[in-house]
Amino acid sequence: MYNQYSYRLGSETSGIREIFEYGLQQAAIVGKENVFDFSLGNPSIPAPTSVNAAIMDMIQNEDSLLIHGYSSAPGFLDARNAVAKELAERTGTNIQGTDLYFTCGAAPALVSVCKALHIDQHTEILGIAPFFPEYRPFVESTGSRFAYVPADTKDFQIDLKTLESMIHEHTQAVIINSPNNPSGVVFRKETLEQVAAILTKKSAEFGKPIYLISDEPYRELVYDGIEVPWVPSIYKDTIVCYSYSKSLSLPGERMGYIYIPSDMTDAKEVFAAVAGASRVMGHVCSPTLIQRVVARCAYEKPDLEAYDNNRKLLYHGLKKIGYECAYPDGAFYLFVKAPGGDAVAFSEKCKQKNLLVVPSDDFGVKGYFRLCYCVAKETIEKSLPIFEEVFSS
Amino acid sequence: MYNQYSYRLGSETSGIREIFEYGLQQAAIVGKENVFDFSLGNPSIPAPTSVNAAIMDMIQNEDSLLIHGYSSAPGFLDARNAVAKELAERTGTNIQGTDLYFTCGAAPALVSVCKALHIDQHTEILGIAPFFPEYRPFVESTGSRFAYVPADTKDFQIDLKTLESMIHEHTQAVIINSPNNPSGVVFRKETLEQVAAILTKKSAEFGKPIYLISDEPYRELVYDGIEVPWVPSIYKDTIVCYSYSKSLSLPGERMGYIYIPSDMTDAKEVFAAVAGASRVMGHVCSPTLIQRVVARCAYEKPDLEAYDNNRKLLYHGLKKIGYECAYPDGAFYLFVKAPGGDAVAFSEKCKQKNLLVVPSDDFGVKGYFRLCYCVAKETIEKSLPIFEEVFSS
Repeated sequence: MYNQYSYRLGSETSGIREIFEYGLQQAAIVGKENVFDFSLGNPSIPAPTSVNAAIMDMIQNEDSLLIHGYSSAPGFLDARNAVAKELAERTGTNIQGTDLYFTCGAAPALVSVCKALHIDQHTEILGIAPFFPEYRPFVESTGSRFAYVPADTKDFQIDLKTLESMIHEHTQAVIINSPNNPSGVVFRKETLEQVAAILTKKSAEFGKPIYLISDEPYRELVYDGIEVPWVPSIYKDTIVCYSYSKSLSLPGERMGYIYIPSDMTDAKEVFAAVAGASRVMGHVCSPTLIQRVVARCAYEKPDLEAYDNNRKLLYHGLKKIGYECAYPDGAFYLFVKAPGGDAVAFSEKCKQKNLLVVPSDDFGVKGYFRLCYCVAKETIEKSLPIFEEVFSS
Repeated sequence: MYNQYSYRLGSETSGIREIFEYGLQQAAIVGKENVFDFSLGNPSIPAPTSVNAAIMDMIQNEDSLLIHGYSSAPGFLDARNAVAKELAERTGTNIQGTDLYFTCGAAPALVSVCKALHIDQHTEILGIAPFFPEYRPFVESTGSRFAYVPADTKDFQIDLKTLESMIHEHTQAVIINSPNNPSGVVFRKETLEQVAAILTKKSAEFGKPIYLISDEPYRELVYDGIEVPWVPSIYKDTIVCYSYSKSLSLPGERMGYIYIPSDMTDAKEVFAAVAGASRVMGHVCSPTLIQRVVARCAYEKPDLEAYDNNRKLLYHGLKKIGYECAYPDGAFYLFVKAPGGDAVAFSEKCKQKNLLVVPSDDFGVKGYFRLCYCVAKETIEKSLPIFEEVFSS
């Protein structure tokens, strides 16, 4: 006598995790140096030194009761103000600390927002393929439906015509993720402007806001001087979900936030609904020591040199072999066309050579595989001959 | 267009929070030293020195990628093993690390368990008054019903006859909380044995397990050498929810666990259902730095002297004035009979004198008020004359 849906969700291993676990097993047999694991998006550059310096300083010089004590549920206001100040400067907007709700990372942020926007069993939230596979259970567990716009495989922007055709009276929100996991692509400003035009039109047509949920854990991970457009400045009914997992390399510490612009439709009500949704997810506050760390390190930027070098090495290496791949502007992923077209079969072939890649099926598109290049440079160097082998075999 | 239930939950201020906020406002007007705030259960003894020493040592000597990196969703196995080892020794049982699921505190632990045990709209989970007010939204938000056994105001054990009469075919679990918030009472072994007998009988009658959810954040906060019985040794279908908020004074750091005994009915399935429920609450892992801290500090005990002194001072002070109060064995609460019988009116009268107490109505019993004595000794000393004033006025 237990919940069957939760049981199923807890029993099914995610494809990605399964590949990762296989890698660990193989490493024990053939040696770690002979396993080329491109499966998991676990940052490989350490947290900026200022992060650990901030922790040391607080532990040594501040009151233990304060640094480890409760904050209010949305977070310490001074910490939210510090984060808002930097965001406001960077985006040229008027973000206030009170517009932010600190969460234990982007995942509970997304779930809170989906819960807050769930109306009834007809409610639908749209993803854009390729998408982070957890969007589906996050949305469906709140009682809403999840559907997605098929991938625009030309350049992994957004198939706008299909997006428009899929929006109906029960569409509550569209989730976007840029820089994108798994494609590494950044949505261009023109793409987002067209999305905004569609949502504005459809909101008017149905007489209710259709929200844009912008999932942005990779916002600061971009290369070649590319700029990530600030989505709320393009479409006012945007809710931003953010995590410090990648930008400060703190994935285990569970720190992120929800930004609800004060001029968004029903901003106050949605903020309250997010608070209520978080409350019944058992959210009390996000970890308080780390709240203070992100406040102190608000102006810190990740040192992307290692990722950038990996990106170039892997991208150009694969292109030279003959692989087709979307040009990666950001994050730490490459999304590569599977030779032969069957991503699962190709990934299986790679696995036989201890080359671990993730087939694209779970991301809502067939025929690709994802590579996380947050690995050691040597892993890439030593893997390229194997990529060559499997390409033509 | 937002979720009305979440909106309501996020808009209503908890009575306790409201009183606390009032205290802050008054402090700004009349001075902090003239406000006697007994409203919030925020630990007033700092974390053991070994906690901060462990953090310092890890920051200085360990790989930043490891200490801040992801763990698996149930937590690092070595950390779970360390916690299990101490628990097994202390309880004389065979707890394994794999029986533990680390959570971001007791609140999400309880929600995960309630979600995992939800069957359909008839499912009911019982509380025992007086109870932590959040049990109701935690249970109801999962789609189950919440009902409660009225308080046994004789000695704040459990009204066993009523408990038995309230269990029906849709009862999935009973939540207990000992040492109790708000009464400070520890459930005696005999009480728990009788609860076990009732649940065993009813489980047989209905042909399915009725689980006991033991919410134990105050387990180590007991006085006078009192022993808190280990509930899974008394009733095998017990799920323990724990938090380090009180025992290590780390309430803001969000670290706790769910213990699912391996010999519990459907243990594996319930564990998987808890994992699935946590997954769709956006649980990725509990904060990893603190996971390692609790592993290192598994044998640490809180220094209870200050709480114990406060407890005696306040309890005997109030008794001398004429108040009636359950004898507090544990936690840091006193549950006192409101003179005149109307707890809300009495609390209001106290509030006029900047004496902040919480009326018992939200805890499922009328006519009492709760005092948190995790305050400075001076607060108690200076408040006693005011307690005397309001007693007879």
